[in-house]
Amino acid sequence: MEISVSRKSHFNAAHRLHVANWTDERNKQVFGTCNNPNYHGHNYDLIVTVTGQLDEETGYLIDTKILRDIIKEEVEDRFDHKNLNLDTEEFKSVNPTAENIAVVIWRLIHKRLNKNVTLTVKLYETERNFVEYSGR
Amino acid sequence: MEISVSRKSHFNAAHRLHVANWTDERNKQVFGTCNNPNYHGHNYDLIVTVTGQLDEETGYLIDTKILRDIIKEEVEDRFDHKNLNLDTEEFKSVNPTAENIAVVIWRLIHKRLNKNVTLTVKLYETERNFVEYSGR
Amino acid sequence: MEISVSRKSHFNAAHRLHVANWTDERNKQVFGTCNNPNYHGHNYDLIVTVTGQLDEETGYLIDTKILRDIIKEEVEDRFDHKNLNLDTEEFKSVNPTAENIAVVIWRLIHKRLNKNVTLTVKLYETERNFVEYSGR
Amino acid sequence: MEISVSRKSHFNAAHRLHVANWTDERNKQVFGTCNNPNYHGHNYDLIVTVTGQLDEETGYLIDTKILRDIIKEEVEDRFDHKNLNLDTEEFKSVNPTAENIAVVIWRLIHKRLNKNVTLTVKLYETERNFVEYSGR
Amino acid sequence: MEISVSRKSHFNAAHRLHVANWTDERNKQVFGTCNNPNYHGHNYDLIVTVTGQLDEETGYLIDTKILRDIIKEEVEDRFDHKNLNLDTEEFKSVNPTAENIAVVIWRLIHKRLNKNVTLTVKLYETERNFVEYSGR
Amino acid sequence: MEISVSRKSHFNAAHRLHVANWTDERNKQVFGTCNNPNYHGHNYDLIVTVTGQLDEETGYLIDTKILRDIIKEEVEDRFDHKNLNLDTEEFKSVNPTAENIAVVIWRLIHKRLNKNVTLTVKLYETERNFVEYSGR
Repeated sequence: MEISVSRKSHFNAAHRLHVANWTDERNKQVFGTCNNPNYHGHNYDLIVTVTGQLDEETGYLIDTKILRDIIKEEVEDRFDHKNLNLDTEEFKSVNPTAENIAVVIWRLIHKRLNKNVTLTVKLYETERNFVEYSGR
Repeated sequence: MEISVSRKSHFNAAHRLHVANWTDERNKQVFGTCNNPNYHGHNYDLIVTVTGQLDEETGYLIDTKILRDIIKEEVEDRFDHKNLNLDTEEFKSVNPTAENIAVVIWRLIHKRLNKNVTLTVKLYETERNFVEYSGR
Repeated sequence: MEISVSRKSHFNAAHRLHVANWTDERNKQVFGTCNNPNYHGHNYDLIVTVTGQLDEETGYLIDTKILRDIIKEEVEDRFDHKNLNLDTEEFKSVNPTAENIAVVIWRLIHKRLNKNVTLTVKLYETERNFVEYSGR
Repeated sequence: MEISVSRKSHFNAAHRLHVANWTDERNKQVFGTCNNPNYHGHNYDLIVTVTGQLDEETGYLIDTKILRDIIKEEVEDRFDHKNLNLDTEEFKSVNPTAENIAVVIWRLIHKRLNKNVTLTVKLYETERNFVEYSGR
Repeated sequence: MEISVSRKSHFNAAHRLHVANWTDERNKQVFGTCNNPNYHGHNYDLIVTVTGQLDEETGYLIDTKILRDIIKEEVEDRFDHKNLNLDTEEFKSVNPTAENIAVVIWRLIHKRLNKNVTLTVKLYETERNFVEYSGR
Repeated sequence: MEISVSRKSHFNAAHRLHVANWTDERNKQVFGTCNNPNYHGHNYDLIVTVTGQLDEETGYLIDTKILRDIIKEEVEDRFDHKNLNLDTEEFKSVNPTAENIAVVIWRLIHKRLNKNVTLTVKLYETERNFVEYSGR
């Protein structure tokens, strides 16, 4: 049986939903107020979960201090207090929906982990809207 | 890999736990104070999760505004500020346990969704007691 | 300087808002869905706060176990899993708005406390609607 | 003795902290990452509290549906999914710190209420940073 | 399709992370401040989830009052207001990491349940660090 | 009118309630399981609130980054991952009840602030038990 270890963190960012090769009209119709040209913003809450085998000697799957540092370097330093559309490489041409942000974060953290664990990323855009992306 | 999108909502309702073809004595013994003849009530918190393939063009799995409207029409308009046992068709002959309410909500929302997604319904009767029902 | 000690608890109850000497029409107009004849319900969250002088010897203002027992006897045993309008003496002729419930709870707990403390009752009807009543 | 009634709501907005008649250098030094030229954003949680005399007949201080509508018209419709610095009149020349946003919201709601009540505005910029402004 | 029923509870305990057959130096290096010789402590939040077939007659998977009593007897009575390293049999020779505490709680509760259900134990050491262990 | 700015933080510590010049019997009778000789522990949540005049130029009452640093230096560095009774000067001879911890924290932070503000310390020992101490 495997065990999961989770770490919660957060970052604050501005964004707008916008597909570059659509007309302004279509963007407005599909994304509504989320397409506001001058951006709006969120406090994103992030839960990163690693699932794998327990190390019998330490009693750890992964030291949460290590997980905390990976999240800080890959997510907080990159996205906190930023405009996702303007200030980041990752969303220059990718629409920063909650789904896409979760996939991007999954890829950034996954490359830092051992490949024998499952990684799950849960991202709250608001308390009421959230997404989850998971894989090994 | 699939992705999940969740939407949280809530409704307030009265109910009592009661099996129609049991004696009052047996109902009282099995359900205790939850069997109170004059009903009691809850603020039900509901998390509806849809799991499936990301639309690469929009970056959406499902627009949460659409999910919000389905939940409003199928759940809130039907159950909010109601007595589940007396005011609803669904629980005229079905005992409104948290488990049964989750199954009923799953069926109501499932018929509104594309059939290539998994639907998960998580229902909090209180902060401490909650149930989850999931299927495709 | 005084100090405050708070204890959080909760109870689940059914109620309807209804003024006995009004017409059904006026009740419906003023209270809307909260006037539903068959009742609806809530998980009421309750925070009881006592403010007064610290006992230098024990380092306590009031033992929270004592406060917990007073709340259990005066509030939970009386209102939990009840229909406030039908099953309780207190709301036979008093409209069970959040405001009135807070005032009733204040009076029930106040008579159990030393008279040299301030008592504050904060009652959450939902996470979004709550009231507070305070006095010595 | 007076009673308080509170209503919680929220809005999502982009902003940057910036004093117009300061140099860029001084803005950056005082406000740090909050001065990011391309903005960042928050999910602002707002608790509006009205304190005054209970109406003995209805058992209401103020109908929370009325309070909800005032908050929607004065705050949500004005600030939700907006860039506070660019899209609003209120913060064209006022630095949108949490303190200033709370004062602006207080003035907007205060002019809609009877003058014999106290109005308190509590604004959460994040779960960890919040402000409160109160007066009659 | 199966359904899940969850019950949340909590206990407060002191602990230190320490592997008995390591040097003090290595313990300090691996576990940092969590290795503090005089212990530190946590409010552990625990969510116990049972997954299985719904009983069509009662509308229950498992009565949450039964689940509550099992948790009280196996977890709260054993660990609440205790020093896990000094006061319990379970952690005399097992390092009380969140992972190991979850596995121990899983075993204690699992032996009290019918063997045709899946048991999941989710343990929050803090709001930001939590683990999950699941199996049939 | 004055404004308040609050900052939330937390620390994890072990403690036991014990009055040095009482018999073991009396300590056990008054403090119950909180008197456990081998200690138990808590995740203490702390909300520090400063109330005073807004600086019209910056739009700040106090920069929350400054407040965060004061809390880190005076509270977190001193008490986090410690045994309050054994590892700290402050509780060598003071019983670490929630009330006394709040008063000690108030004094530590108060000496770091300008004297023209009111300081309020709210300390959660658990989600259900908390205290507040306030003064200028």
